[in-house]
Amino acid sequence: MRDSETLAREVMARCQTLARFSEDVGSIRRTFLSPPMRDCHREIARWIEPLSVTSRVDAAGNLRIVYPAAESEVGAARLLIGSHLDTVPNAGAYDGILGVVLGIALLCALSGRSLPFAIEVVGFSEEEGVRFGTPFIGSRALVGNLDAELLGRRDAEGISIRQAIETFGLNPVEIAQAAIQDDVLGYLEFHIEQGPVLKNAGLPLGVVEAIAGQSRLEITFMGHANHAGTTPMNLRHDALAAAAEWIGAVERQAQSTSGLVATVGAIQAKPGAGNVIAGETKLSLDVRHRNDDARRRAVDDCVHRAEEIATRRGLTMRSHVLMDQRAVPMDPFLVSQADEAVRRAGCEPYRMVSGAGHDAMILAERVPSAMIFLRTPGGISHDPAESVEAEDVARAIECGLYLLEQLSSSSEFCRKTQHA
Amino acid sequence: MRDSETLAREVMARCQTLARFSEDVGSIRRTFLSPPMRDCHREIARWIEPLSVTSRVDAAGNLRIVYPAAESEVGAARLLIGSHLDTVPNAGAYDGILGVVLGIALLCALSGRSLPFAIEVVGFSEEEGVRFGTPFIGSRALVGNLDAELLGRRDAEGISIRQAIETFGLNPVEIAQAAIQDDVLGYLEFHIEQGPVLKNAGLPLGVVEAIAGQSRLEITFMGHANHAGTTPMNLRHDALAAAAEWIGAVERQAQSTSGLVATVGAIQAKPGAGNVIAGETKLSLDVRHRNDDARRRAVDDCVHRAEEIATRRGLTMRSHVLMDQRAVPMDPFLVSQADEAVRRAGCEPYRMVSGAGHDAMILAERVPSAMIFLRTPGGISHDPAESVEAEDVARAIECGLYLLEQLSSSSEFCRKTQHA
Repeated sequence: MRDSETLAREVMARCQTLARFSEDVGSIRRTFLSPPMRDCHREIARWIEPLSVTSRVDAAGNLRIVYPAAESEVGAARLLIGSHLDTVPNAGAYDGILGVVLGIALLCALSGRSLPFAIEVVGFSEEEGVRFGTPFIGSRALVGNLDAELLGRRDAEGISIRQAIETFGLNPVEIAQAAIQDDVLGYLEFHIEQGPVLKNAGLPLGVVEAIAGQSRLEITFMGHANHAGTTPMNLRHDALAAAAEWIGAVERQAQSTSGLVATVGAIQAKPGAGNVIAGETKLSLDVRHRNDDARRRAVDDCVHRAEEIATRRGLTMRSHVLMDQRAVPMDPFLVSQADEAVRRAGCEPYRMVSGAGHDAMILAERVPSAMIFLRTPGGISHDPAESVEAEDVARAIECGLYLLEQLSSSSEFCRKTQHA
Repeated sequence: MRDSETLAREVMARCQTLARFSEDVGSIRRTFLSPPMRDCHREIARWIEPLSVTSRVDAAGNLRIVYPAAESEVGAARLLIGSHLDTVPNAGAYDGILGVVLGIALLCALSGRSLPFAIEVVGFSEEEGVRFGTPFIGSRALVGNLDAELLGRRDAEGISIRQAIETFGLNPVEIAQAAIQDDVLGYLEFHIEQGPVLKNAGLPLGVVEAIAGQSRLEITFMGHANHAGTTPMNLRHDALAAAAEWIGAVERQAQSTSGLVATVGAIQAKPGAGNVIAGETKLSLDVRHRNDDARRRAVDDCVHRAEEIATRRGLTMRSHVLMDQRAVPMDPFLVSQADEAVRRAGCEPYRMVSGAGHDAMILAERVPSAMIFLRTPGGISHDPAESVEAEDVARAIECGLYLLEQLSSSSEFCRKTQHA
């Protein structure tokens, strides 16, 4: 078995290699079943040739590599390890990709050694939602949720998901066969954190215990547009001043509620001229928390605060809920095993909540799931400057190998294996 | 002499007639020397036929109607009465137009009676700055400030002011002859208030004692764009949250400074997505006050407040001054005479500051100037809903006639006449 530092450097080099397969010249963009996705699959196939694995691309475009269980374990169940191979436009090299390449590195590190369960490394075809405005196309297929309505959704050029699948040479009729069965023991995903928490804590790895629920709203304040020079301050109904007061209230509420993040990222003031008092201001609100009750209470409070501000200022307001997505807990057993593996890899165990959605959120609907985050320098992702430290990748590889060892010797986990 | 109520109804009907001469179908838009401006001049010429006046269109497109002084006053000086004939897009019928039509109504009301001075009614060709992004083209010509640089400015179609003048059949070489000489005694402008002050005070007329000075700035907060889900509140450098805090500070400062108005009307947050913390936010700042020191102090305070907010939040900021225009006082003698005329017209005299620029601001550079505001229902202007009450127009006509009478019998004013 090669040492983890060598493997980590190989993982990073391989991520950089896959970054070359892009729809855009000079920057990374690899959307659902775009031509560079085929190059990506071909390159990975070259890497796994020396391994005793079988691989295929399922009808939803997911790359699936199976490392078999010990020969004695006929019909043994599988542990999935994966992440996604698609990217946003102007992407970095690691978001998603790292989890797939790291899964393959774990197979390499096993050096043919078999476990009581098979390992299936999955490179999901789509997680970012770029091409069709619908994320998780790949992982939805695995849990059997890629239905006809979704398959009919079209990209900017009018091509449906179904047509894209056919164009890639796959058969959408076979999508049902991409779904996992009862022989899957769990799902494990390594992913860059895409945030500053681990960096600030000075830790290379974090164990995700839940993926936050998320609310998205649109809030509109309606006042009166008026002349900025001729309207005294006490006779104004300024929709932008009301919006500003509300943004401050949202920020203070999030700061005073443990684990809550609330963001106003988009704002539009009309008419939007420097010498006209804004008559209308439209804003986005994004609220996330691991606890759905806490999140919904915060959303209610934000909306009530907007109503109170509007009323006091002689304005009206309306709110519109665009998204209300429940929090998804990770599997407690896998989370505690991941903690232990992190500790054995020489790192301080650190539990965290993922504020972003991930394939693990979808898989958790069907199978026990866990995620391990890698520290993200600068907290930067979805950007060419996205990076990861080789040392942190080495710790992640060690953590993954310890975790596989623990699961192999866990009577609780292997009991499930025998049941499958 | 017809009574003022009859004249007022005629004034309003005439404003509505001129509103028919528009560049746009279904809404009013009459920019500098556009074809409907010619129809406008032609219609006014029809109205003044019964009067013993001479009229011409000067080389800057201003309509100029001279009502002569008493025959005994050979070479008598002139009092200018006017406003502008151009409009914004989707305009109302009264902004500017009312002042010109009301001036003509005063000539009608004089019924041939001569005063010790001549009256020149001026319909300025341009005040709104719509076509060339440069306001006051007409009044600048009167004070001799329409220079070669200005004449070279181009509209959206690449046509210069000079070309527009030629196309209208006028000769730009003769612009110098449009300038007033030492024989002008003063300038009087009636204009709708375009604000809610008179309406709220329950008064039909207001006497403007100064036109506020104005500062315009662009303020930019620069933070760090980041993921709205993965970045805890305490690790954010949110440029929109900083901007919101600053908008509140600007509003409070204006509310606590007598006579100050400060407006943030334009805002742009980047990248402007609901799930991304804003990395940059750009805002407009518009500050007006009758006292230039008070205005500049307020601007300095706003900029310092922005710096303080940026520093405390770990952001940077920059500010850029786009405009710093001094306040323009109206002539104290004319203002006190206007007060008296307002009182004689049965209204409570009410002094006010104009927050908007007007032709009187330009004329005041050269001659004693005064403005009388008419109450604006709903404070609405630059809108098809812009209106004015016939009773208020009647009071304005009476006020104008009393003012002419007072000036005619004022030894101070007539001494100037004889000197001219």
